[in-house]
Amino acid sequence: MTKIQDVARRAAVSVTSVSNAINGRTDQMRKETLERIEAAIAELGFRPSHAARQLKTGHTAMLGLLVPSIANPSFAALARAVDVAAQKSYGYRVFLGNTYRQLENEKSFIDDLLAQGVRGVIVVSAQVEQEHFREALRKGVAMVNYDGRSTLRSSPSELAMDSVSMNNVEAGRLAAQHLIDRGCRNIAFVTESARTNSRTDKIEGFFSAVADAEGVTSAIIEDRALAEYGDSEMAELGRSLAERISSMSQSPDGIVAVNDMLAIGMLAGFRSCGVRVPEDISIVGIDDILLSSLVAPAISSVSPPLPKMAQLMVDRLISRIADPSIPAREFLLPPKLIVRDSVIAR
Amino acid sequence: MTKIQDVARRAAVSVTSVSNAINGRTDQMRKETLERIEAAIAELGFRPSHAARQLKTGHTAMLGLLVPSIANPSFAALARAVDVAAQKSYGYRVFLGNTYRQLENEKSFIDDLLAQGVRGVIVVSAQVEQEHFREALRKGVAMVNYDGRSTLRSSPSELAMDSVSMNNVEAGRLAAQHLIDRGCRNIAFVTESARTNSRTDKIEGFFSAVADAEGVTSAIIEDRALAEYGDSEMAELGRSLAERISSMSQSPDGIVAVNDMLAIGMLAGFRSCGVRVPEDISIVGIDDILLSSLVAPAISSVSPPLPKMAQLMVDRLISRIADPSIPAREFLLPPKLIVRDSVIAR
Repeated sequence: MTKIQDVARRAAVSVTSVSNAINGRTDQMRKETLERIEAAIAELGFRPSHAARQLKTGHTAMLGLLVPSIANPSFAALARAVDVAAQKSYGYRVFLGNTYRQLENEKSFIDDLLAQGVRGVIVVSAQVEQEHFREALRKGVAMVNYDGRSTLRSSPSELAMDSVSMNNVEAGRLAAQHLIDRGCRNIAFVTESARTNSRTDKIEGFFSAVADAEGVTSAIIEDRALAEYGDSEMAELGRSLAERISSMSQSPDGIVAVNDMLAIGMLAGFRSCGVRVPEDISIVGIDDILLSSLVAPAISSVSPPLPKMAQLMVDRLISRIADPSIPAREFLLPPKLIVRDSVIAR
Repeated sequence: MTKIQDVARRAAVSVTSVSNAINGRTDQMRKETLERIEAAIAELGFRPSHAARQLKTGHTAMLGLLVPSIANPSFAALARAVDVAAQKSYGYRVFLGNTYRQLENEKSFIDDLLAQGVRGVIVVSAQVEQEHFREALRKGVAMVNYDGRSTLRSSPSELAMDSVSMNNVEAGRLAAQHLIDRGCRNIAFVTESARTNSRTDKIEGFFSAVADAEGVTSAIIEDRALAEYGDSEMAELGRSLAERISSMSQSPDGIVAVNDMLAIGMLAGFRSCGVRVPEDISIVGIDDILLSSLVAPAISSVSPPLPKMAQLMVDRLISRIADPSIPAREFLLPPKLIVRDSVIAR
C-alpha cells in the first residue's frame, strides 16, 4: 500500500507538506509544489486515507454497533438491518463489536471506536447508565440505546442518548392475551432470571393481560443461563426449563417465552419429555426470528418492526453527529403478533 | 471529542507540530514545545487517534471480514469465531462487511478497508480471482479466502492469497457414506444451482461415495434460489425443493443437503407435504449450525472445525501483514460427521 511517506519522497517534499495538500491547507504552498504533490499522488495511486481526512474532520463514515453476540440470531438480524439502513441512506459502514455482555468488552470497544474516529454508536446493553458510556457521551459520541428503554421508568433518563425500543410491555401483553384468547387458563412467563429493562417490561405486560382476564392463573418460571454468553445459551436454558415444567404436578397450559431462542429450546425439551406442543402446552415467543417459522410447530411470536427501528436509529445518529444539541428522545415502536402453529384453541 | 486542533490551540503551536509530536518526529522540536504539547494532550484528555498513528504505521489493528450476509447463521458463527481469535490472540477487532454476493458491494468494502488502513481481510467469496481482489493484493492487503478453495483445481492459484477451507470433497463423501451405511439405495444431492467451488467439491465427494457402493443410484436435485440474497433464501429453496421431491414418482430414500439451512427448509417442506423424516426420507446436512440440533428431527450434519479455521486465518493474516513475502498456502481442514436423528437405518 502506498503510504504518505512514499508520496513525499516522490514529490521531494516533507510528509507535512503532503498532509497539508491532502487537507486543503495550501494557502502558503507554492503552486509548483502542490502540482508536484498531486502528480505524485496520481502516479503512485495513493489514496488519501480516512486517517488524513479524519485529522481534519474528526470523524469517519462508520457507525458502531455493540451487541452481546452476533451469533445470536436476533442480533444478526439487527446487524443486517442496521447495515442496510446505514449504507443505503448515508453510505456509512457498520463497525461491529461483540461484548458477550461483559463490561470490559464494552469499554474497550468504545475506546476503539473513539480511536477509530467513529462518532455514532448503537448500543445493545442493559448498562447504559454506566460510566464508560457516560464518558463516551462526554467525548461527543452520539449514541442510541437499542431495546434498553423501560416504559416503567417514571422519569426519562438524563443521559443525552436516544433510545429506540419495541414496546415490550405491549409485546408481553399481546403474547399473554393471545394465549388467553385461545382458552389458556393457567399461563406462565418463562425467562432467564436476570432482569433487563426489556424483560421487566415484558413481564409487566404479561401480568396486565392476566389482570384483565377472569379466572386465569399465572406464574413466572425462570432460571439462570450458563454464566458464559454462548451461542446456545438461551436454547439450552429453554431445554432445561421445559424439562422442569414437564415434571411439575400442575404444569401450565400456555407459555410466553421471553424470546424465540428460549421458545425453540423449549420445543426441543418438551419433545424429549413426550410433551406435545401445542396439544399439551401452547407456546408464544417474542422476537419473531426467521427460525421460528421453520421449526415444528412453527412458533407464534411477537414481532418487532426491525427495519423501521434500524432506520430510525441510523437517522438519529447521523442527525446527532451533525447537531449534537438536539434533545435526546425515547422511541417506543409497536410490536405485532404473528400467529403460527404453536398455540391451539382449548 | 478533543481534536488535534484543540491541542494545538491549547499548546499555542501548529497542528503540524502536534502531529509531529504524536508521531515521534521530534528531532527538530524544542524541548519546551514538546513539553507544552504533551501537557496539552494530558490536560485535554486527547487520545491520539488511530488516524494519527495510521499516518505513521500505515495500518490499523483491525481485520476485515467480508461475508455474503451476517444474517446467515453459518456466517454469524464464523464472524464470532474470527472475532474471538482476533481479539484473544492479537487484540485486533473485526470490521465486518455484508456483500449480499454483489460484486459492487465487495469492491466498495475493499475500498473502505483500504481507506480505513485495514491491512488484512478474510474473504468469503466465490470470485476471488476478480480484479478488485487482485487490486487489493497489489496494494498490499493481506488476504485469506475462506471456503473458496477447490481441491479439484489441478494447479494452485497464482494469487498471493492464503486459502482456508473445510475439505468439502470429504464433507460430501462423509454425508453420502452415512446414508449408504444406513441402507439408503437411492440418494440425491440437493443444492442451489450456482456452482461455487465448495458446492462442486461436495458433489464430487458425494459421487465418489456412490461410486464405491454397490447398487446405489444417485441424482442431483437443484434449483435457483431467489435472485436477492435474503436471510431466508436457502430455507425457502429447501422448502420448495422438498415439495418438488414429494411429488416425484420415485423419490429418493436419502438426501444430502448442500447446507443445513437448506436441510431445515426441507424439513418444513416435507412436513407440510406429509412426508416423514427420517421414516420416509433420511436427510444429512453440511455445516452443523446450532439450529440443526434444535429442530425436529435434529439434523445429522457434517461439521467444519470452525474455531480452528478461524484461528488459522487470523494467524496467517497477522503473519502476512508482518511479512508480506511469505508464500501463499492452501489449507484444507478435515470435517467430522455429527450423527443426530434425521437418518434412519433401512
